[in-house]
Amino acid sequence: MNDTTSSDIKPWGGRFSEPTDQFVERFTASVGFDQRLYHHDINGSLAHAQMLAKVGVLTDEEYTQISEGLEAIRGEIERGEFNWSVSLEDVHMNIEARLTERIGITGKKLHTGRSRNDQVATDIRLYLRDEIDSIAAELTRLQQGLCELAAREADTIMPGFTHLQTAQPVTFGHHLLAWNAMLGRDYERLMDCRKRVNRSPLGAAALAGTTYPIDREMTAQLLGFEGPTENSLDSVSDRDFAIEFTAAAALIMTHLSRFSEELVLWTSAQFNFINLPDRFCTGSSIMPQKKNPDVPELVRGKTGRVNGHLISLLTLMKSQPLAYNKDNQEDKEPLFDTIDTLRDCLKSYADMVPAITANADVMREAAMRGFSTATDLADYLVRKGVPFRDAHEIVGKSVAYGIESKKDLSEMTLDELKQFSDTIEQDVFDVLTLEGSVNARDHVGGTAPAQVKAAAARGLKVLAERN
Amino acid sequence: MNDTTSSDIKPWGGRFSEPTDQFVERFTASVGFDQRLYHHDINGSLAHAQMLAKVGVLTDEEYTQISEGLEAIRGEIERGEFNWSVSLEDVHMNIEARLTERIGITGKKLHTGRSRNDQVATDIRLYLRDEIDSIAAELTRLQQGLCELAAREADTIMPGFTHLQTAQPVTFGHHLLAWNAMLGRDYERLMDCRKRVNRSPLGAAALAGTTYPIDREMTAQLLGFEGPTENSLDSVSDRDFAIEFTAAAALIMTHLSRFSEELVLWTSAQFNFINLPDRFCTGSSIMPQKKNPDVPELVRGKTGRVNGHLISLLTLMKSQPLAYNKDNQEDKEPLFDTIDTLRDCLKSYADMVPAITANADVMREAAMRGFSTATDLADYLVRKGVPFRDAHEIVGKSVAYGIESKKDLSEMTLDELKQFSDTIEQDVFDVLTLEGSVNARDHVGGTAPAQVKAAAARGLKVLAERN
Amino acid sequence: MNDTTSSDIKPWGGRFSEPTDQFVERFTASVGFDQRLYHHDINGSLAHAQMLAKVGVLTDEEYTQISEGLEAIRGEIERGEFNWSVSLEDVHMNIEARLTERIGITGKKLHTGRSRNDQVATDIRLYLRDEIDSIAAELTRLQQGLCELAAREADTIMPGFTHLQTAQPVTFGHHLLAWNAMLGRDYERLMDCRKRVNRSPLGAAALAGTTYPIDREMTAQLLGFEGPTENSLDSVSDRDFAIEFTAAAALIMTHLSRFSEELVLWTSAQFNFINLPDRFCTGSSIMPQKKNPDVPELVRGKTGRVNGHLISLLTLMKSQPLAYNKDNQEDKEPLFDTIDTLRDCLKSYADMVPAITANADVMREAAMRGFSTATDLADYLVRKGVPFRDAHEIVGKSVAYGIESKKDLSEMTLDELKQFSDTIEQDVFDVLTLEGSVNARDHVGGTAPAQVKAAAARGLKVLAERN
Amino acid sequence: MNDTTSSDIKPWGGRFSEPTDQFVERFTASVGFDQRLYHHDINGSLAHAQMLAKVGVLTDEEYTQISEGLEAIRGEIERGEFNWSVSLEDVHMNIEARLTERIGITGKKLHTGRSRNDQVATDIRLYLRDEIDSIAAELTRLQQGLCELAAREADTIMPGFTHLQTAQPVTFGHHLLAWNAMLGRDYERLMDCRKRVNRSPLGAAALAGTTYPIDREMTAQLLGFEGPTENSLDSVSDRDFAIEFTAAAALIMTHLSRFSEELVLWTSAQFNFINLPDRFCTGSSIMPQKKNPDVPELVRGKTGRVNGHLISLLTLMKSQPLAYNKDNQEDKEPLFDTIDTLRDCLKSYADMVPAITANADVMREAAMRGFSTATDLADYLVRKGVPFRDAHEIVGKSVAYGIESKKDLSEMTLDELKQFSDTIEQDVFDVLTLEGSVNARDHVGGTAPAQVKAAAARGLKVLAERN
Repeated sequence: MNDTTSSDIKPWGGRFSEPTDQFVERFTASVGFDQRLYHHDINGSLAHAQMLAKVGVLTDEEYTQISEGLEAIRGEIERGEFNWSVSLEDVHMNIEARLTERIGITGKKLHTGRSRNDQVATDIRLYLRDEIDSIAAELTRLQQGLCELAAREADTIMPGFTHLQTAQPVTFGHHLLAWNAMLGRDYERLMDCRKRVNRSPLGAAALAGTTYPIDREMTAQLLGFEGPTENSLDSVSDRDFAIEFTAAAALIMTHLSRFSEELVLWTSAQFNFINLPDRFCTGSSIMPQKKNPDVPELVRGKTGRVNGHLISLLTLMKSQPLAYNKDNQEDKEPLFDTIDTLRDCLKSYADMVPAITANADVMREAAMRGFSTATDLADYLVRKGVPFRDAHEIVGKSVAYGIESKKDLSEMTLDELKQFSDTIEQDVFDVLTLEGSVNARDHVGGTAPAQVKAAAARGLKVLAERN
Repeated sequence: MNDTTSSDIKPWGGRFSEPTDQFVERFTASVGFDQRLYHHDINGSLAHAQMLAKVGVLTDEEYTQISEGLEAIRGEIERGEFNWSVSLEDVHMNIEARLTERIGITGKKLHTGRSRNDQVATDIRLYLRDEIDSIAAELTRLQQGLCELAAREADTIMPGFTHLQTAQPVTFGHHLLAWNAMLGRDYERLMDCRKRVNRSPLGAAALAGTTYPIDREMTAQLLGFEGPTENSLDSVSDRDFAIEFTAAAALIMTHLSRFSEELVLWTSAQFNFINLPDRFCTGSSIMPQKKNPDVPELVRGKTGRVNGHLISLLTLMKSQPLAYNKDNQEDKEPLFDTIDTLRDCLKSYADMVPAITANADVMREAAMRGFSTATDLADYLVRKGVPFRDAHEIVGKSVAYGIESKKDLSEMTLDELKQFSDTIEQDVFDVLTLEGSVNARDHVGGTAPAQVKAAAARGLKVLAERN
Repeated sequence: MNDTTSSDIKPWGGRFSEPTDQFVERFTASVGFDQRLYHHDINGSLAHAQMLAKVGVLTDEEYTQISEGLEAIRGEIERGEFNWSVSLEDVHMNIEARLTERIGITGKKLHTGRSRNDQVATDIRLYLRDEIDSIAAELTRLQQGLCELAAREADTIMPGFTHLQTAQPVTFGHHLLAWNAMLGRDYERLMDCRKRVNRSPLGAAALAGTTYPIDREMTAQLLGFEGPTENSLDSVSDRDFAIEFTAAAALIMTHLSRFSEELVLWTSAQFNFINLPDRFCTGSSIMPQKKNPDVPELVRGKTGRVNGHLISLLTLMKSQPLAYNKDNQEDKEPLFDTIDTLRDCLKSYADMVPAITANADVMREAAMRGFSTATDLADYLVRKGVPFRDAHEIVGKSVAYGIESKKDLSEMTLDELKQFSDTIEQDVFDVLTLEGSVNARDHVGGTAPAQVKAAAARGLKVLAERN
Repeated sequence: MNDTTSSDIKPWGGRFSEPTDQFVERFTASVGFDQRLYHHDINGSLAHAQMLAKVGVLTDEEYTQISEGLEAIRGEIERGEFNWSVSLEDVHMNIEARLTERIGITGKKLHTGRSRNDQVATDIRLYLRDEIDSIAAELTRLQQGLCELAAREADTIMPGFTHLQTAQPVTFGHHLLAWNAMLGRDYERLMDCRKRVNRSPLGAAALAGTTYPIDREMTAQLLGFEGPTENSLDSVSDRDFAIEFTAAAALIMTHLSRFSEELVLWTSAQFNFINLPDRFCTGSSIMPQKKNPDVPELVRGKTGRVNGHLISLLTLMKSQPLAYNKDNQEDKEPLFDTIDTLRDCLKSYADMVPAITANADVMREAAMRGFSTATDLADYLVRKGVPFRDAHEIVGKSVAYGIESKKDLSEMTLDELKQFSDTIEQDVFDVLTLEGSVNARDHVGGTAPAQVKAAAARGLKVLAERN
């Protein structure tokens, strides 16, 4: 991609003494991967042509010819009838050459006052904007699934882990909402990124602007951009939007990797906390008991892909002098693959999450083991006026006794507990049970079922207001 | 870092049959790098204590003791009198232990209703928020320097490059504003990131919230946060803010690397477009003519550092199950070094840019060479009604003649030009001169001096409105 | 990819209550990208079948059927007649299903004593080994071009740069050999990597080995491996070879990016040191004087791609528990694209380098400017017994005079030089000329033409001995 | 770092009209982190001085003065008496300035025929070579621990996992040897890297070699290098060795991250397969039952650090033109931190591994659950002549019956098994037991205890032969 025009006999060929090597032609062409921009390339051209007609560079008749020609080409492409040519290098030249073939020399006038440099920047921004919207929709759908499942599982108790060691009881709904919180930030980041994607570089031309009396505000408006970009040199060389989007995508994938890790753990025989729907798993012909959590594993693996694309783009732009350089052709594949990967991963999770089922008994049993309410006993003692250090010592001795006698704190009798402190009364069992423990964490962000239900409802309200 | 308390004799030591290995103690301690959080750690503790007093967990007297004790410790640290201990692991335990040493058992009560897990998350957010503000100030100062220089150099003509080949003339001011446009987006990204940094995890406790009647809104408000975070499990494990900040930093460094690359090119003997102030360069004892652009080179090199930290953090968080894991201790060094690097690089550029001087004659001479107004001639012909293809042929022949006769287009006589087309009249010289060329690109974002001046003024207005 | 067998009705479907979602089927299938392994998959199967026959698990007749069937399938694939099916997931299942279709139930026996887990590890290693060999051949061809060009340009003087400032004169041939030295290390790294690629995981089966009396030494030998791997769990989960290869590739691309940077600089109007052959450049229809160094720019841009793939693979493997996980399916695309990118970049450079021509006059003129022999003058004085510090002062004053009088050191008269030191005699001109300067650096690794010629000859000898 | 000399009044200051800004001085100085090179810098200087004396550039007396001076400075540094100065920029200038302070003008002569550019490259190589040796020693110690533990645990049966689902029984010793196999490749890579580190750039001088009659072979030999490097331009700009080492380190850390992941899983309440020695864990004051696997978690987290450094270095070198640029100063911190991180992680693992204890009963019980010998039953039937497909069906039905009746295959009676196939005889129990299953995988790389013992012994033999 660079600001040249080309045809089967390349128009800049006059100064060149030998034909482009076939290998080099293939090596430097981008049409193999940039043809997916055809729809937005045509939309960009339509807006440009309409503006050229308004400012008098094109006649109305010429504009009509061009717009009809472009729509016809769009039809050809969508019906699979378009003949893409590597020797025409890229999507832009393929469409322009076909337009000239269809409508004659007027086709060439479409390129007045623009260049491939601003054209491709416009196309990618239009394309990415649409893809952000469809990704945001999948993200929202996934969040809906999480909030709804959280509301249903607000009372289901499971062990909360730190260091993968049982720490305190939490509710499954609360855990689900942790993932929802991550994805909520991701949505914000996508929308912040979208603002910066949605500015029009059209009119920057090759690098310095154009001598034609173009109206950049008009094309920006026609294409739904918030406005034109501020500087032509920057406009043709800026790929920030691709990097910012890919960075946001890398964080989403990081969240999905954490989510996946827990799904894989929880479907292991050792945890056995949940069941995944069959269609997201594979079995084994020879080991019929096996059900491999393929989709979570694959999504976890795809995290690397997006981290890699982020580095590709950052490396690409490092130290590039202004304005456009051929290096920039390398922006597309990492961006496109990031989009595809992210959308597919979110879609598979949005489909899967509502069908997750909890093995509530197993979760509960695991929370019981491990003295997960030891903190609650200490808090109880402190509230009764026992000094901090003494409270800790009492809890320590109680747990030691529990390990020896194989009893959870809540399974001890009052007399057993009183061995360690006379302060302990019957009401201790309100805090030693799993329910007592989770109910007591009753503040914004806490794991109490009432809080989880309220948080799930708030979450759903936020999602409903997105459009 | 994990939710344990510690002293010289570690309080959780009872269950352990052997002392922590000295190497392991050093290997797992973070106080060597996290002590820079002391100021924000104390502020967080002060707000927490004030809230505990309000909800009745602390008496007013206890609160007074704690707050006086903490302020005294802050003084000790700032006077260099504080004795940091590796065996106390981290900044939090060092300060808490010292508080207890100073005010007795009341010091321990400060930790009621919180944990090191929410405490460290609070500290980093407070610290990062302040650092974002100081980085934004340096960024703004750099932008100011660019806009002011651009206003001064709005008429200075230089070659505009694509593929590092002379393409069209631009003004030096226009080029400077391209960098300003990049940095303007960077500022937006920092502010978007700041919103997400500025939420209070305090009260999430170890992972599930606390059984004490805490008021999370109050501590959030006291600390200047926009509000509390939504989910306790997420709050103690979330490091998105560090990743998002580092990604924004990587883009800023990428922009500085491009800026640096051009400064290095332009100070080479071959380009010789600008002079850098001496204090940003080094010389050579043996080659007295040499003046090495050290600061731009070093800044360019530091790009790698920040890209690396971004990957460190993404790798760190990949596949981590909830909630807090010891892995997270590794979040600090990449974040801290990113902050330091970014602030220093911006500062050095903000200092340097106003002192850049242009070698306007050399720039102009370079723009003259290379037929940089060939596009203008073609546009001129098209406006005169010459069909596109014919115009190109005419320009091609004129340039070929110019190469042969060693004359730029603007140096040819009207008769010479008329050899190639009768349509060419005296007014062609309005477009063939460098001034004619740049003045003709007179639309928003174009390189015309009038546009550059207006853009610089708009830029300065935006900067003035930042606070 | 995981160790399951499949057909249109998936054989492990019995336990599953719903069909695999079509989207999930597409999302989890690898046949779209792993079909390029077909050739090595068939070779691996042939060796496995031959071994099974030898140890008596297959009859000779069965072996014959299988081997004829596999060769027939290879033919179908190569003639484009093979019908790849996404529902058969991957290349292995596609070929196995077709084999069974062709030869009946005997086809299933091929899979005795192996699993898809060791099969795919074997296939990738065989494939990568062949690709390393073809990449090494292109690398060698490029080095040959460099050494031959260096021999021809051993006397051509150009400025040597540090900090992109003229430092000392060097020869163009010497500079070319710097690139050759980088590529020489790259070759060593590829060969070291190849040793570790070339070990046979076949026989590791799903993860633990197999109960059949297999002969792993035999299959290793049949496939040209150095021997079998040591541990079955490691064998099915190890992807070190892909990471090591990609790391070596990233270094090669880093070298090519440096090479490219200089080619882009040197073809700019400002440097104008060399000409690139036309077919590696593009022009511009509107600016006929332009010749954009597309291939170097594109190669420079592709560096990011390979760095990205390296991070993809490292991220992929981080924290994966043993043995095989579905994540590993993600190893292929980064590896394949690294191979393709590296081979194409090396090929384009191997084609381009021999056709580079030097603008010797421009190079020489640039070396003359910039007092590049100032170091030589100092060395001269020191050898004459002038103390170090005094010598420096003398050179500093001489250069200052030269800047003022616009004369290079070699252009001054003896009298002019003697103003600064009486020690200077006529023989100073032997060291002040560019030839004197380069000739004086006459030791291994130095820039003296004699050394460059010898080094080029040594380089060619090394290359000739590679096979 | 660049080839300048400096003192409190910088010697290149004459041409400069303003003092170096204090901030810039600090920003561009490297002495804060490169002083750790002092030992190798002195060794390099000693060898250089000895060579200069031999070729007659220094007198014997001068050489004696220099070598005594340098040894005295080494003493000062090691006793903490050396006064490092930021205004002297780097370790080299600090030592040289001190030498001149001690022995007068002769100190300056040390720098004859070299430059800071080749000096620093030499220092880093010498330093890295020593560090590789100490890292290799820790790696070997860790492998010894693994092999010895594997030998002891060769008969301990645990479940082998794929997709974190129980697949087939393996032995704990076999699993330990999988880690040993990874580390064995790592050792090879370090040694391959060492070869390329161990070449002497000394004599390349600033970039082009020197005019003094130096003997590069002699200094190379004195410093234990394999020989001098081939090209001076390459020698001062090459940082491949740092990248190659860091890439090898990233793979080692990736292996340790996988190892860590399993240790964390295995010490969870849900797995409970092993116990880690206390001193590698922390407890919690309030939850006395907790024992957090801090060291494995921290090591897992440190993987990100090294991946990040690798990207830092690759980004740093991307597109750098020859020869030395200031960017290269940024090579040190990522390299040094990689060395420290890697050595500490390996040391902590080498200390920890021998003290790991297996909960053999829990492992065994887990292997029993999950029908891990289903594959063995199928293999048994095939060996008895049952066609493949029929065998699979029989196993499928048996497992379904087992799930329903809550019996593992080995717990069924012969009559129960015969329901599914008459072919099953008493000898089936030889393969259905865990011991039968593991013993049957009796080939190189298989999990049979006999194979594991042999492999552990082979492993120990390899380690013993390393020196």
